[in-house]
Amino acid sequence: MTSSTNPNSIPLHPTIFVIFGITGDLAARKLIPALLHLYSKKMLPQRFSIIGFSRRPMARDEFREYIRERLNVRPGQFKEEDIKHFFDHMSYEQGLFDDPRAYARLADKLNDIDSRWGQCSNKLFHLSVPPTLYEGILERLAQSRLTAPCADDTGWTRVLIEKPFGNDTATAHRLDRVLGTLFKEEQIFRIDHYLAKESLQNILAFRFTNSMFEPLWNRDSIEKVHIRLFEKKGMEGRGAFYDPVGALRDVGQNHMLMMLALVSMDKPKNFKADTIRKERAKVLSKLLKIPLRTMEKFVVRGQYEGYTSEPGVSATSSTETYFRVQASINSPRWKGVPFYLESGKGMVESKTAIDVYFKTNKGSTHQNILTFRIQPDEGIKIRFFVKTPGQGFEVEPKPLKFSYSETMPTLGSTTDYERLIFDVFRGDQTLFASTEEIMSSWKFITPILENLNKLPIKKYERGAQEVE
Amino acid sequence: MTSSTNPNSIPLHPTIFVIFGITGDLAARKLIPALLHLYSKKMLPQRFSIIGFSRRPMARDEFREYIRERLNVRPGQFKEEDIKHFFDHMSYEQGLFDDPRAYARLADKLNDIDSRWGQCSNKLFHLSVPPTLYEGILERLAQSRLTAPCADDTGWTRVLIEKPFGNDTATAHRLDRVLGTLFKEEQIFRIDHYLAKESLQNILAFRFTNSMFEPLWNRDSIEKVHIRLFEKKGMEGRGAFYDPVGALRDVGQNHMLMMLALVSMDKPKNFKADTIRKERAKVLSKLLKIPLRTMEKFVVRGQYEGYTSEPGVSATSSTETYFRVQASINSPRWKGVPFYLESGKGMVESKTAIDVYFKTNKGSTHQNILTFRIQPDEGIKIRFFVKTPGQGFEVEPKPLKFSYSETMPTLGSTTDYERLIFDVFRGDQTLFASTEEIMSSWKFITPILENLNKLPIKKYERGAQEVE
Repeated sequence: MTSSTNPNSIPLHPTIFVIFGITGDLAARKLIPALLHLYSKKMLPQRFSIIGFSRRPMARDEFREYIRERLNVRPGQFKEEDIKHFFDHMSYEQGLFDDPRAYARLADKLNDIDSRWGQCSNKLFHLSVPPTLYEGILERLAQSRLTAPCADDTGWTRVLIEKPFGNDTATAHRLDRVLGTLFKEEQIFRIDHYLAKESLQNILAFRFTNSMFEPLWNRDSIEKVHIRLFEKKGMEGRGAFYDPVGALRDVGQNHMLMMLALVSMDKPKNFKADTIRKERAKVLSKLLKIPLRTMEKFVVRGQYEGYTSEPGVSATSSTETYFRVQASINSPRWKGVPFYLESGKGMVESKTAIDVYFKTNKGSTHQNILTFRIQPDEGIKIRFFVKTPGQGFEVEPKPLKFSYSETMPTLGSTTDYERLIFDVFRGDQTLFASTEEIMSSWKFITPILENLNKLPIKKYERGAQEVE
Repeated sequence: MTSSTNPNSIPLHPTIFVIFGITGDLAARKLIPALLHLYSKKMLPQRFSIIGFSRRPMARDEFREYIRERLNVRPGQFKEEDIKHFFDHMSYEQGLFDDPRAYARLADKLNDIDSRWGQCSNKLFHLSVPPTLYEGILERLAQSRLTAPCADDTGWTRVLIEKPFGNDTATAHRLDRVLGTLFKEEQIFRIDHYLAKESLQNILAFRFTNSMFEPLWNRDSIEKVHIRLFEKKGMEGRGAFYDPVGALRDVGQNHMLMMLALVSMDKPKNFKADTIRKERAKVLSKLLKIPLRTMEKFVVRGQYEGYTSEPGVSATSSTETYFRVQASINSPRWKGVPFYLESGKGMVESKTAIDVYFKTNKGSTHQNILTFRIQPDEGIKIRFFVKTPGQGFEVEPKPLKFSYSETMPTLGSTTDYERLIFDVFRGDQTLFASTEEIMSSWKFITPILENLNKLPIKKYERGAQEVE
């Protein structure tokens, strides 16, 4: 993999970071800590300003207090002085998301800052709000001309939105049209934080810097690929959010298809964002649609016992808390190789992993399996066979193993959001989902969603290993 | 790998084990402990007898005392009772190796035992003597008709000899003619104890039970193979033995070419001894002879500083204590892939390993290396590249690792000799060198030996990493 320039060496242009929904959960848990991290590592622009935007009326001090109380950082993780200086860069703007006057006030505020700095700064708009509000905010942003750069050659404007990107093909299309009308693709940063996970990025690093594995990465050597995202927990109070969504929308369309894309994509010609995203999108576009007549063979839906008694869940809910989909990729490389996507809540353990099963010799039961362990205990493992010591020639399976946590104790030092926000500053879209990827994912998932209610709901006990 | 029957389940025919040179070092350090091990695990035939043969006059009790004192076992390793019972199976026969009457007495003794048992037993003759004595002993054995089976359908006779098998092609031929005249190939067990090492057997197990690696095992994926056998120590009093031999004869012709054969041989059709040995021999027979005109390019000889001052070494000795040979195999699989054989005494560390270097992507420096670590810390390791955690897409090398000692604490429980002797009982020749293998090895090594004195002797300091 060609390495990019040391990110720390890039001087960053002055930037104003506007966060819609700053009083929400995500901002306090993820965004602000990530920005604080970047600040303490001197990875934010020298001149930066964070403007929180939300409905709740709060004075400046009250706002700081509010954020401070909710800030998800460990005691002692940052110097008090750093936190204090960081907060000096923050201010608050109260307003309703649908009130044009609020956007006008915001625009004034941004202009004031630019005047003070004597520069046309970058503007970054983060929509940390429920997806139903996206369209309204985006349109008003555009109307108020806040998203137009203030100069031809400096001062970009970018918009960050969070998944889900639609509910199915139609709604995704609609969101995409709104985005596409108001912004160019290079201005839009769609966060699927999964993509920023080190262990996911490592799939690419593993595949494309370790040339020894490339000759094996095809239908001649690989029998099947099994992608699992298991959660031990059930609803834990999130039933009202989950019940209208279900497992397939919650993790299938995004996280799991992203893992499938990374493990199956062709080698990109270079490691520029656009090239990588095109290859991811290309393989997703080759997913074979599962027709209704074979739906029951290739798709299983399940629901754990007791789900319908969870708070917030309808007593007659048929929402799937488990699914297993057998996907196929219509390409010379992967023709005939099943890709199993399996996910559930209330499973035996919480773990996410991709198992690549290699074909065995004729008549042999000794199957090599290469595992990308995403979480917990991130790492890479190859199940291989060694001779049992002593007389005879018996063999037994053992792991060739690499664990990130054991050998790279700094792994946890950069959070997904920290990485993502820094990449937005740099304009690197590699770890963000493209329009094409999202549309291809929905194209595969929507026909399944539409026919899911025709499949029997398999009930399973909490703690299941799989659902038959 | 197809597994053989559980060896413990084979009932073994009554056997008499005759050890020529029982008072020597090898017998006390290796053979007797191995037999004692097998005995304590009930892996010797129910009826067995060990007859020690040597020049030294000793009474029965004196003999036992002698062996007991030199026995290389840990205190408490065996029950006293086991040792006592084991010794009850041993007896001593004094005689000169060139005295026909001694063989006649030996024959009488064997016949007595057979009469007592009422059976025609197996006879196993182990030549634990200097190679110069082989021919004389073998001929007298044959003359005394000791090596002829006592019945048509039961009672085999087998002969075990220790390396070196000759000094060059001519002497190896001569020994081979003697052996071939007196015995059939299936009666001859040539011990190169290296072959019985778990870590060497594991090369085969690794290659042929792990089908994922087979597509990579050729010139398309592999750039070069480097086989190293380094010893830290120098002569340690063995100068008089070593000086007429040199490194190439000491380890090059046998251990190192055996490793080369295991790592490069084609997959045998089955895992029968004969098939495996044929494949090993086949690849050795394809080693390209290094002609005199390219000798200096492909062969390096070295001698550590101070070697000629070692006790027993000639002050003007030009014996090599180090060599590096670049070998090539003339086969479609390996054409153009260099196999480096490198060995030395007085090196930086004691280690034996085979490094398989995979080709890199064009323009990339990220080279995957698969290492078979033979000793110490036996194991398998793949150097691969993972993303350095954090921003950017830098990668760094890390190991995918498997260590026998960490995961298989029983590894040390079976010694090489234990395994070998048991295999002689079973008649399994897999771990013994065949005539063909030995002759092919000499065919490759002899021309180098003959021209070695035309190459400059590179002097190196003790503790060298390599010799330029």
